[in-house]
Amino acid sequence: MTLPMKKLKVGILGATGMVGQQYLSLLEHHPWFEVVFLAASEQSAGKSYAEAVKGRWHMQKNIPVDASDLIVSRIDDLAHAMQCSFVFSALDTDTAKLWEERYAAAGIPVVSNASAHRKTDDVPMLIPEINPYHLGIIPEQQKRRGWKKGFIVVKSNCSLQSYLTPLYAIHRHAPLTKVMITTLQAVSGAGHPGVASFDILDNVVPFIRGEEEKSEQEPLKILGTLQNGTIKPAIGITFAAHCNRVPVLDGHIACVSFSCEKKLSSDVIKKLWNEFVALPQQLQLPSAPKHPIIYRPEEDRPQPRLDRDAEGGMAISVGRLRQCNLLDFRFVGLSHNTIRGAAGGGILNAELLYKQGYFL
Amino acid sequence: MTLPMKKLKVGILGATGMVGQQYLSLLEHHPWFEVVFLAASEQSAGKSYAEAVKGRWHMQKNIPVDASDLIVSRIDDLAHAMQCSFVFSALDTDTAKLWEERYAAAGIPVVSNASAHRKTDDVPMLIPEINPYHLGIIPEQQKRRGWKKGFIVVKSNCSLQSYLTPLYAIHRHAPLTKVMITTLQAVSGAGHPGVASFDILDNVVPFIRGEEEKSEQEPLKILGTLQNGTIKPAIGITFAAHCNRVPVLDGHIACVSFSCEKKLSSDVIKKLWNEFVALPQQLQLPSAPKHPIIYRPEEDRPQPRLDRDAEGGMAISVGRLRQCNLLDFRFVGLSHNTIRGAAGGGILNAELLYKQGYFL
Amino acid sequence: MTLPMKKLKVGILGATGMVGQQYLSLLEHHPWFEVVFLAASEQSAGKSYAEAVKGRWHMQKNIPVDASDLIVSRIDDLAHAMQCSFVFSALDTDTAKLWEERYAAAGIPVVSNASAHRKTDDVPMLIPEINPYHLGIIPEQQKRRGWKKGFIVVKSNCSLQSYLTPLYAIHRHAPLTKVMITTLQAVSGAGHPGVASFDILDNVVPFIRGEEEKSEQEPLKILGTLQNGTIKPAIGITFAAHCNRVPVLDGHIACVSFSCEKKLSSDVIKKLWNEFVALPQQLQLPSAPKHPIIYRPEEDRPQPRLDRDAEGGMAISVGRLRQCNLLDFRFVGLSHNTIRGAAGGGILNAELLYKQGYFL
Amino acid sequence: MTLPMKKLKVGILGATGMVGQQYLSLLEHHPWFEVVFLAASEQSAGKSYAEAVKGRWHMQKNIPVDASDLIVSRIDDLAHAMQCSFVFSALDTDTAKLWEERYAAAGIPVVSNASAHRKTDDVPMLIPEINPYHLGIIPEQQKRRGWKKGFIVVKSNCSLQSYLTPLYAIHRHAPLTKVMITTLQAVSGAGHPGVASFDILDNVVPFIRGEEEKSEQEPLKILGTLQNGTIKPAIGITFAAHCNRVPVLDGHIACVSFSCEKKLSSDVIKKLWNEFVALPQQLQLPSAPKHPIIYRPEEDRPQPRLDRDAEGGMAISVGRLRQCNLLDFRFVGLSHNTIRGAAGGGILNAELLYKQGYFL
Repeated sequence: MTLPMKKLKVGILGATGMVGQQYLSLLEHHPWFEVVFLAASEQSAGKSYAEAVKGRWHMQKNIPVDASDLIVSRIDDLAHAMQCSFVFSALDTDTAKLWEERYAAAGIPVVSNASAHRKTDDVPMLIPEINPYHLGIIPEQQKRRGWKKGFIVVKSNCSLQSYLTPLYAIHRHAPLTKVMITTLQAVSGAGHPGVASFDILDNVVPFIRGEEEKSEQEPLKILGTLQNGTIKPAIGITFAAHCNRVPVLDGHIACVSFSCEKKLSSDVIKKLWNEFVALPQQLQLPSAPKHPIIYRPEEDRPQPRLDRDAEGGMAISVGRLRQCNLLDFRFVGLSHNTIRGAAGGGILNAELLYKQGYFL
Repeated sequence: MTLPMKKLKVGILGATGMVGQQYLSLLEHHPWFEVVFLAASEQSAGKSYAEAVKGRWHMQKNIPVDASDLIVSRIDDLAHAMQCSFVFSALDTDTAKLWEERYAAAGIPVVSNASAHRKTDDVPMLIPEINPYHLGIIPEQQKRRGWKKGFIVVKSNCSLQSYLTPLYAIHRHAPLTKVMITTLQAVSGAGHPGVASFDILDNVVPFIRGEEEKSEQEPLKILGTLQNGTIKPAIGITFAAHCNRVPVLDGHIACVSFSCEKKLSSDVIKKLWNEFVALPQQLQLPSAPKHPIIYRPEEDRPQPRLDRDAEGGMAISVGRLRQCNLLDFRFVGLSHNTIRGAAGGGILNAELLYKQGYFL
Repeated sequence: MTLPMKKLKVGILGATGMVGQQYLSLLEHHPWFEVVFLAASEQSAGKSYAEAVKGRWHMQKNIPVDASDLIVSRIDDLAHAMQCSFVFSALDTDTAKLWEERYAAAGIPVVSNASAHRKTDDVPMLIPEINPYHLGIIPEQQKRRGWKKGFIVVKSNCSLQSYLTPLYAIHRHAPLTKVMITTLQAVSGAGHPGVASFDILDNVVPFIRGEEEKSEQEPLKILGTLQNGTIKPAIGITFAAHCNRVPVLDGHIACVSFSCEKKLSSDVIKKLWNEFVALPQQLQLPSAPKHPIIYRPEEDRPQPRLDRDAEGGMAISVGRLRQCNLLDFRFVGLSHNTIRGAAGGGILNAELLYKQGYFL
Repeated sequence: MTLPMKKLKVGILGATGMVGQQYLSLLEHHPWFEVVFLAASEQSAGKSYAEAVKGRWHMQKNIPVDASDLIVSRIDDLAHAMQCSFVFSALDTDTAKLWEERYAAAGIPVVSNASAHRKTDDVPMLIPEINPYHLGIIPEQQKRRGWKKGFIVVKSNCSLQSYLTPLYAIHRHAPLTKVMITTLQAVSGAGHPGVASFDILDNVVPFIRGEEEKSEQEPLKILGTLQNGTIKPAIGITFAAHCNRVPVLDGHIACVSFSCEKKLSSDVIKKLWNEFVALPQQLQLPSAPKHPIIYRPEEDRPQPRLDRDAEGGMAISVGRLRQCNLLDFRFVGLSHNTIRGAAGGGILNAELLYKQGYFL
């Protein structure tokens, strides 16, 4: 792989929050992208990044040296943002709703983690291993809105990562019909401060607002098809989800039962998983895991603490494949919710967009 | 209710383990039963109970004063055990296999928490709110083995408590057909030392040996019918279970989806739960919860830490009843695994047996 | 003890926060006090209490039925507050600064948990077992400010409770000279939401803002003397404190080393602790623990989960008394920080004030 | 630095336990050492290593491929062990007592983590940054026992690492007189299964058997001097320690207060820490941290989860240096107890021994 001679200048919107911090951590030393623009709220704007996150830097790694001294911009500082080839958006939903479109309109592509545009039917919800061809809708998206260079691509909710790619590896061979999921989700999924410690120590909270709906509907869009310039949700599949918060720092677990249109054996499914590679692996994208799906043969894996960091937190670990009394099969899936499920996933999206020539 | 003038003398087999300790704690000041006999392993036998559990008493309450000075017996000290009207068995499976029968043969009824006889088809697996009529098989059990006064009654696995009674409240009006369960189980369910802290802090273990099988098969026996002197498992219902260990001290959560033979509304189900009472309530057994099933209207309940102690840990809390995309309905159930799910459940079993005249 | 015929009407300022909720929980069924007035912030005012705390009631017990329907008042609704014989204040520091004085000026005594007046030299910082005679300064406090019936009495910081009473039991026989403390404090001490779960799971935070200063200075005032109408801090004693936050729900641990003016033996100290009773016990105040100090003989006690609820959370547990290489002795102390260390302690203060005739 | 052409063959005694596993993990790809011999108990002997640790491999990394297939030996298989240039011992105390001497007698140097020989006055207790000159006693040790090539070198207890090196950096400029320590220790320090989860979730255990004695006495030996062929403990310094177990996976915290013979300023101490380097750094030993002591300027650091992995878990993090009311200064120290405090520390010891020519 030949590296680009010069790194692309990129920005991060919502740079001081937990996902923003994760972006900065993961982009340090990135071979293609160089962070030059950081936008955050009023109270951070005008300060150096180090100053802005003082007392609330939550990553284990120190603040990247280059980012420390960057002066944080206001979100409306589009003039300054124009130097970026694209921006990552880690904005909260309401701010995203407003500003992602303005950035795109100004000619700056937005690679978003926010949920604001997940339901917009000409905005691709990209998992590079699953639906890279959804990017084909970008010209349509631009045309409709009169945008030239700008566009919006979004990530799915973090809970999906632990089950959707393993299910897709099966689905492309034997279409799924029914999927029942129970998630056990880490506290970092709620951002910072997120879940109060008093609410979760020695406890489980069997409810996460909006999470079950997202876990049931977003897969349909991701597995959907392009028709007449929009993404039509997949039909013939039903997802049902129970979502729980558990006292785990990072790593979402999914207990999954599923049925397919045709009969499969355990061995075939394991083979589908072990041999699964897709476009990010073929293109050797810098953040692509070599093995997107890792099947653990142990009887008690995957486990969040032991498996979340597999391939730098970008691989999905699965295990315990066995027959289900009610549906065809069941298994346990796991992914790192703030890496593969958030900033790492966003970076992989950007790498694919870049490699495919979407950043002009 | 008139209390018996004189308390029944009872024993505890496996008195030094976690369940044995829970029995002693809960039986302190019991209106009907008085602990006079404690049996444990070689290394404890001959010591005072306080001495035997020194450094490994795990209850929040202190050791009951009366029990402290009891000299621990060997399990084979049947002569000494004969003073008991019955014994609670908190033995491990292998020891239970051997000794529960010997006690019963010696004329001492055994109210057991062990799994040794759960599959024996003329040994009732009793949940007093569900299948009290299974006790009718006891004479058959005795006859077959030539036992006079002795018999064995067992408890189900602790994981069932959080879902089976709420499901039964529905089942008796609209027979169940399919039940999908994912449990999030507390560490106390594994006894002491049980789960190593290094394995469960910041982690989930998505596997508990034998637990899924029990969670799927034991309900069928409990909901089964008496036929020709044996208990025939229920037919027409299928249970499927995923079992997980989570870093919670006490309280098993179950995320449940189910279908019935006929259509029900949410309101009907809530009414069935809110109004559910059964034999233990009618007989006003001392350990019977007034409300065996408590429906929590909050959107994020039940939770282990907040709800496990409802009605002294003997009530089941349920919540989040809503329609399921795949089966009819779904909900979250919770019970205290070492109280309702172990010693408290065993005591309730004994209270029913006593009230029904089984201890001669 | 003869109970008062009619309960005193009392109010709670800051009723919707964690300490306010704890007050309501503990005052349900109180023999002397009846909660009739609840004040909280703008957004709660005008709602029923149940409505106001919806989704953020953090106690294990349900909301007391009587309180559920009380309409929450604004803090400035003094007209409505005038029905109260006194109020408990669980206000944050800034609001307390302003409003506690206004209530007192309006003739309503304030029993406060806030830190606003802890340093005011004519406001007693009361631990009923230690310095009840500090109440003697109240007339002086009133005279100076022109208050008639109103006055302010405060509680100390919660961290002190686990070591100061055990130390005082020694101090009154052999004056202390040096005390070195390291605390391991529960997350509930930070209120709700308080400590973010992401910051404390699998972690310790060796810093709590302002806590070490309070742990070092407040004991001096509590052990101080009345002179010329003010409380003079004790002299001749030095406290040094390290304060840590640990992933524990309730119960502050203190590892203490100390020296006295004269030599003591272990046996004498244990005797001082075991036999310690003070005015609250003599007056049989309803919330007074029978044994204010409980010495645990086990080598590994006290522990938060096992000992915090001793005597309803009002007793201090101590253990591991042994000689220290550098100071005279060392031990471990423990108290329940939201009961003895907050609302329960405030209630005990009010009981003493009532019994001593301070509520006219 | 020129690397050795051929790696030294090394063995691990007690290879299946937690420390043994940590050794294997850390030695994978080690530039100087190659693991060729693994000894463990009866029940593991004869199996492949992968087989022997099946179901109880606790490291996040997978079992090193080379080690997987090694056949585990019995501890008495000295014939097989003779191929090793030296062995690491992660044996339990009793086995260590017996077998470390036999290995040394057989000519195989033993780099030990066990406590068996920590008090033996001609066995160096080595922290390479502090007392490398203690190795000078090895010839004496050998002569006395008639050993030719073999000898024993031990590590200190893991609790010391978080405070002793920072204190030593001060001590060599201004001799210490008094040190008061309270430790908050991670569960991995107790090995596996170690602390039961039921004992430590939502809890602190303020007692670890033998730990306070080790924390007080071992520093004296490490800071001691060589006299007449033995190591004389340091005089003029007193250590006092409280040791606690907290629900943290890895990373021991120490809250330290200390006094010196002469007055120092904060700035001088920070400078001593920031500039501290010693022999392992000068020799560029492969496992030596570049900055053995890292001073964190944040007000709330070091924290176990954020700082334990500094420099691969080999650096000590310190913070919160401030004056103490009773002694001169206080600070918080932190080290990774299973890396720097166990296997990583043992490897650094071996690297120093090798570089100094002790492995013939």
